[in-house]
Amino acid sequence: MLGPKSIDYFFNPKTIAIIGASNSKGKVGYTIFENMKKASSDCNIEASKNIDEQGNITYKCVEKIFPINPKHKEIQGIKAYPSIKKINQKIDLAVISLPAKFVPIALEECISCKVKAVIIVSAGFSEVGEQELTKKIKKLIEENPETRVMGPNCVGVMSTYSGVDTTFFERSRMRTPKQGSLSFISQSGALGSMILDWVATQEFGINKFASYGNAMDIDEADLIEHFGEDKKTKVITAYLEGARNGRKFFEIAKKTSLKKPIIVLKGSRNEKTRKAAMSHTSSLAGAPKVYDAVFRQAGIIQAEDLLDLFNIAKLLEKEPLPKGNKVQIITNGGGFGIITADQIVEQELELAKLSKKSIKKLKIELPGAIISNPIDLLGDATIEDYKKAIETSLKDKNVDLIIILVLFNLPTIHVKNILSLKKAREKSTKPIVVCSIGSDYTEKYMRTIEKAGFCTMNYPSVAAKALKAMVAYSEFLKKN
Amino acid sequence: MLGPKSIDYFFNPKTIAIIGASNSKGKVGYTIFENMKKASSDCNIEASKNIDEQGNITYKCVEKIFPINPKHKEIQGIKAYPSIKKINQKIDLAVISLPAKFVPIALEECISCKVKAVIIVSAGFSEVGEQELTKKIKKLIEENPETRVMGPNCVGVMSTYSGVDTTFFERSRMRTPKQGSLSFISQSGALGSMILDWVATQEFGINKFASYGNAMDIDEADLIEHFGEDKKTKVITAYLEGARNGRKFFEIAKKTSLKKPIIVLKGSRNEKTRKAAMSHTSSLAGAPKVYDAVFRQAGIIQAEDLLDLFNIAKLLEKEPLPKGNKVQIITNGGGFGIITADQIVEQELELAKLSKKSIKKLKIELPGAIISNPIDLLGDATIEDYKKAIETSLKDKNVDLIIILVLFNLPTIHVKNILSLKKAREKSTKPIVVCSIGSDYTEKYMRTIEKAGFCTMNYPSVAAKALKAMVAYSEFLKKN
Repeated sequence: MLGPKSIDYFFNPKTIAIIGASNSKGKVGYTIFENMKKASSDCNIEASKNIDEQGNITYKCVEKIFPINPKHKEIQGIKAYPSIKKINQKIDLAVISLPAKFVPIALEECISCKVKAVIIVSAGFSEVGEQELTKKIKKLIEENPETRVMGPNCVGVMSTYSGVDTTFFERSRMRTPKQGSLSFISQSGALGSMILDWVATQEFGINKFASYGNAMDIDEADLIEHFGEDKKTKVITAYLEGARNGRKFFEIAKKTSLKKPIIVLKGSRNEKTRKAAMSHTSSLAGAPKVYDAVFRQAGIIQAEDLLDLFNIAKLLEKEPLPKGNKVQIITNGGGFGIITADQIVEQELELAKLSKKSIKKLKIELPGAIISNPIDLLGDATIEDYKKAIETSLKDKNVDLIIILVLFNLPTIHVKNILSLKKAREKSTKPIVVCSIGSDYTEKYMRTIEKAGFCTMNYPSVAAKALKAMVAYSEFLKKN
Repeated sequence: MLGPKSIDYFFNPKTIAIIGASNSKGKVGYTIFENMKKASSDCNIEASKNIDEQGNITYKCVEKIFPINPKHKEIQGIKAYPSIKKINQKIDLAVISLPAKFVPIALEECISCKVKAVIIVSAGFSEVGEQELTKKIKKLIEENPETRVMGPNCVGVMSTYSGVDTTFFERSRMRTPKQGSLSFISQSGALGSMILDWVATQEFGINKFASYGNAMDIDEADLIEHFGEDKKTKVITAYLEGARNGRKFFEIAKKTSLKKPIIVLKGSRNEKTRKAAMSHTSSLAGAPKVYDAVFRQAGIIQAEDLLDLFNIAKLLEKEPLPKGNKVQIITNGGGFGIITADQIVEQELELAKLSKKSIKKLKIELPGAIISNPIDLLGDATIEDYKKAIETSLKDKNVDLIIILVLFNLPTIHVKNILSLKKAREKSTKPIVVCSIGSDYTEKYMRTIEKAGFCTMNYPSVAAKALKAMVAYSEFLKKN
């Protein structure tokens, strides 16, 4: 039911120790403990979202967090322990936030206590050329495979269903994303945290997040494999600058792609930016062309930028895969239809050609409208008109995907009729995207439509890129 | 001081008659009169924004609006007139919102009253194949050049400084943009209105908007010329599907481009979407390749989509033009720097190479930072660190443009120090863009930075495209 057992403890621990938890506001050890307390106390095991379709509880909330600090009896009002060894309970996950030189001892103690998962947040290892400490950590990891290690030099994990959060930005500066079915890997901890903060403003949610830093043990491939086996993860998203182990990455990515989509924003995509990436994450950046080929063969979807990364993910999470690449546009604004058609053609998707039967039917049902591609329902269109156009397009074999454009400002569009649109697509297996931009009035409608189960995006250019990515993934699955 | 006199009356009328003003909520004639009343009563002639640098008042508020309706003594509580002829006052602008068949008579009356400017909102002419009425209107226009006509089949104009608004979406469904120095032309009235509604949520503002419909008299070239001569318009933006008169358009666009930038989102950009545009605006769509060449030679900047259209406009409005194409990136997040560098390279801009002197200076001033491109100030960077990096980059001859990336979530970034950034660039003639994404905390900082005079954008991809457009425009000016 859950992913590879050893990695599971990072995302689903019952007990957590924060080594270096602090009473000094502003210190990383303060914020980690504070955020972790909040996340675990917000966790609600009874929430229906934690129960899968078979009725099994797939996530358990963190039961207890232990602050470790030899100098204080209490940390933030909670009884502290001088060492992990003094806790009379098995610890699933330990987070080490200490100066680099104390990390090897702390890790040894974790190993001796049989801690299953250790996140080393501390920096000051290979990324700054510190060889001796790096070697010590490496040796401990190699000799003790039962204890899995994430980091060092990382932000760690967030698991929205089980109440784990080892990120260390103050919550006054950063929001926590909603629960959802996207999981997200970020090679860069800071960029990853920024993205999580932005995701919190969006309509979609996150299941698991991991930033793995120097990857001395767990790397991006391990996480992709874990997310691939995690039933609550529908879509995997990642920011990567390179792969730790190219062969392992390719094999795991390809195997996982066949089960669920992986969308990657690749940092350092060309020779000129490769150097910059090398100084950021040391030895990782490989030749950009090699990555392009590897990604393509592994079925990985490449996003052009942050906006695309999550819009592609949202589309793949919400909508069924298309059978082909023929897009039908339905609009109540001619100009809006035309700029969208431009984007469809520029993404090398096809503008669908409705069958003669569909055209005949729609010309009778919608006498004022222009029945072509786009279908232009004109400025006095009602939701019922949209319903007719959508139903016929869904039935037409010449149509694989549908973009619905709505100018909500027009007076004949009424929010109370939106539910009839929902019915129009109930048995559909064709993907639909709804696009519109505007101010609060339009945004309110867009949220209503999103809650009725449609995938919405503001810009036609973003929607076209997401549809293109979806078609490419669908083609990969057909060939493999 | 103002643009060509005859067109001026559309944007700067003292007196307006609304022919077809209505008491029936939901009718176009109701909403036009309601919106017009609101816009003119909101207009504040004393506002400093209406006074130019020389102290002249460049805009005057609408003084009086007359509803014309033979069936009612009052319209929305205001004394109505049975005909424009019965108003004992000169009318600068008349708006006709009547069934098509009554339009010729109404236009004749306007002409006999020497109305300077007439907007025919009504549809039902050449766009639906109605030849006879079209001919009548055409004849009246040709025989009476003193009365300029916009439309028919159009939304008309908005002029935020003078309180003119003939658009007819209910204000409960659509917001009005802020005052600003972008002027906007839209071949499509509905799309134009939707864009205005969206612009209302943005930090930049609109000066004048015009949607000219069937363009039987005033066309896109006339409006570009007018906006080109309008001192309060810094940047011209347009949604166009084609040009009414290619030669006239080219000559006016080229002449205007030398004075101020024109950014066009072209609808129907390829052969496959040309047919769709032809059914939308009848005979306008020309061969896409011809337009590309014409636009390039006329110095017109082409935007890829709606998001780019206004971000390019914002950049050109706020920032000085660059001397070259070499971009320096300054960041406190390595990954954020890398994805931005990717976008810069993909836009075929150059990554600047700091001079040896700059590198030496910065290595002393910022000992922890990575002094390269990007300059990575790392996660503990302060605003003072940014200030040093910006000052040196501004002085370096190898740098033409600067992108500043900020992860505001990091605890060492403080809003109270933002003003020192403002000082750092005070005498600068190099364009700067600040990028970040996040939730409310980051957005608050971004607004503070914007108010301090910086141009901000969320996505690096959008910023890179805007910088690219700016460089291309700068090169056009150098060559012409």
